[in-house]
Amino acid sequence: MTNGATGPLDGLLVVDLTRVLAGPYCTLVLQDLGARVIKVETPAGGDDARHYGPFVRGKSAYFMSLNRGKQSIALDLKAPKDRAVFEKLVAKADLLVENYRPGTMDKLSYGWAQLHAMNPRLIYAAVSGFGQTGPYKGRAAYDMVVQAMGGVMSLTGHGGDQPTRVGTSIGDITAGLFGTIGILAALENRHRTGRGTMVDVAMLDCQVAILENAIARYAATGNVPGPMGARHPSITPFEALRAQDGHMVVAAGNNILFAKLAEALGEPGLATDERFATNDARTQNHDILKPRLEALMAKRPVAEWLAILDKAGVPNGPINNVAQALGDQQIVARNMVVSSDDAVAGTLKMAGNPIKMTGFPDPSTRGPTPDLDADRAAILKELGL
Amino acid sequence: MTNGATGPLDGLLVVDLTRVLAGPYCTLVLQDLGARVIKVETPAGGDDARHYGPFVRGKSAYFMSLNRGKQSIALDLKAPKDRAVFEKLVAKADLLVENYRPGTMDKLSYGWAQLHAMNPRLIYAAVSGFGQTGPYKGRAAYDMVVQAMGGVMSLTGHGGDQPTRVGTSIGDITAGLFGTIGILAALENRHRTGRGTMVDVAMLDCQVAILENAIARYAATGNVPGPMGARHPSITPFEALRAQDGHMVVAAGNNILFAKLAEALGEPGLATDERFATNDARTQNHDILKPRLEALMAKRPVAEWLAILDKAGVPNGPINNVAQALGDQQIVARNMVVSSDDAVAGTLKMAGNPIKMTGFPDPSTRGPTPDLDADRAAILKELGL
Repeated sequence: MTNGATGPLDGLLVVDLTRVLAGPYCTLVLQDLGARVIKVETPAGGDDARHYGPFVRGKSAYFMSLNRGKQSIALDLKAPKDRAVFEKLVAKADLLVENYRPGTMDKLSYGWAQLHAMNPRLIYAAVSGFGQTGPYKGRAAYDMVVQAMGGVMSLTGHGGDQPTRVGTSIGDITAGLFGTIGILAALENRHRTGRGTMVDVAMLDCQVAILENAIARYAATGNVPGPMGARHPSITPFEALRAQDGHMVVAAGNNILFAKLAEALGEPGLATDERFATNDARTQNHDILKPRLEALMAKRPVAEWLAILDKAGVPNGPINNVAQALGDQQIVARNMVVSSDDAVAGTLKMAGNPIKMTGFPDPSTRGPTPDLDADRAAILKELGL
Repeated sequence: MTNGATGPLDGLLVVDLTRVLAGPYCTLVLQDLGARVIKVETPAGGDDARHYGPFVRGKSAYFMSLNRGKQSIALDLKAPKDRAVFEKLVAKADLLVENYRPGTMDKLSYGWAQLHAMNPRLIYAAVSGFGQTGPYKGRAAYDMVVQAMGGVMSLTGHGGDQPTRVGTSIGDITAGLFGTIGILAALENRHRTGRGTMVDVAMLDCQVAILENAIARYAATGNVPGPMGARHPSITPFEALRAQDGHMVVAAGNNILFAKLAEALGEPGLATDERFATNDARTQNHDILKPRLEALMAKRPVAEWLAILDKAGVPNGPINNVAQALGDQQIVARNMVVSSDDAVAGTLKMAGNPIKMTGFPDPSTRGPTPDLDADRAAILKELGL
């Protein structure tokens, strides 16, 4: 099912000044959609993430998983000769993405006004911790800082004296995703106006954007929502429940599903008990319902309950660790575990592209990760330098 | 700073069949970028989320926060007269988004092949729990199910016997974001080919796509990563630390920052202690470093440390609850808390749009939320019906 193109963004050129995670995640998504991404790295070691573990034969698996399929050129943006190369690249590019602290590009004389003058069609996306405006704009931020400040940490975990981070860097990742959306919206706009736009995405803003029903709950009631462990705040039962040999998730989101669950657990009367007859009643009486459910679930191991609830049509799932998730038959069938070959490190597994599009290939092997400055000669030749 | 357009997607028409969260989140992002979104809802109660609490004077604050600025028409897609209306809408639309269980659209004779024949320029995005292919495609999924199956829950929390969900529905939200990216990429492709594409995004796939360094760690070492509480797995100190009156986040990601931190805490010798001299050493010796840091931090309250570390240039942040986050001066300055007026419920606060774009307005008041079928007459008139 391919039309000859590698993706819907085929032919677009991205000049990629990003480092570490939020920016590289954005340009990885663009690359997976067919764009050509040229990483412009500092000659002194390149992207910091090249030096983050874990390493496979000296190469960073972390870096490879975020930069497969990209190209690399090392440029010193303070040296006139390298600046000339960079400016030639900018003149040819469709997109420029950076995740420096605000002000860094201005200091290099590559702020939005200058870039826009150099190439009016260029779309410029700046992904930063706090954004290009506001009182904190000059501060550095990291994932855990914005998870804490944006409120997500206050909603995650079991409360008490143990703050809990989301176990993956959603502070960076959501900024990368909103940045990608901004870039693609600017691309649509460029078809209308012929001109590029600057996109300003802040990690902290994105944390607010994903607070979801917590804002509505606070806005409607004035009560500040807290952490709920592994339970949904307003749907019951919709949580992790303990079976004989461990936990699993059960999501009976309405009365029909709850009746099916009660039947499958061998106590259909639960569904007609007035304390549990409606979702509101179940949520009010969670403290007495949960032990009743777990007493029934204690009779069988997780594997048996998964099969029983599947058959009964009650949404449920195992709590997979990363190895189990990557081996799950659906995840494998969806080509969500791909590989990339490296001359030194060998073949490494990494996450695939979750955007499946009719007419475009979704290869199970992705392009290699460039060594620092690996594509210099080819890029200079292309630029006529 | 407006060019007269409300957003880069001005003039695009979205037919929105989505319900609850993942799909409505996607069309909310499109709406914030200027697209016109017409919700097509079932006449029997409309989008399920209209009936989810919390309620303000009988209206769902949850629903309002996801559907502001959209229009609504109630159509029974099994009734010939309403199907004719729907087909007129499809003929005019640029985008159609749905988050039914796979197969539902086919049963209505509105599968991709049929929609594509009706309007070859239409872009069709299907957001589902497990995707349109693979062994689980027919199953229903909910946020907590995919958080559990995709591995994110295994990385979140403090381990032991307490499974921990991410406190916001990132299973739905990331699918909404990747769906939006797929739609916008298909739009770029339509400029080249004149034809629409089908985009298939699964919530479970998106959970794999955000596992980040957990996959690299597992792939490189064979060790299955577990939950880390509020700590980064490979950077130290990069975690929640206890001060005199509570916790705060400290992110000293390299040796220079660690030296600044040690100085600010009043014990500069920590940075030259060989057990803590490099990030690897600090990570190895986390068990002895953390109590040393917390003993120093116990001398002052969080508010004082925030000011001291800011001054020292060490990235840090308070662990804000939702009320504190929404009141944070940076979040306010970035217009990340907007409001929407409702004739019955009054003014409700909700999250703003984190994609800030030069040349487009970012209003602090957003459009109202439609009552079910509120826009029927106007839409029928527009369609000449």
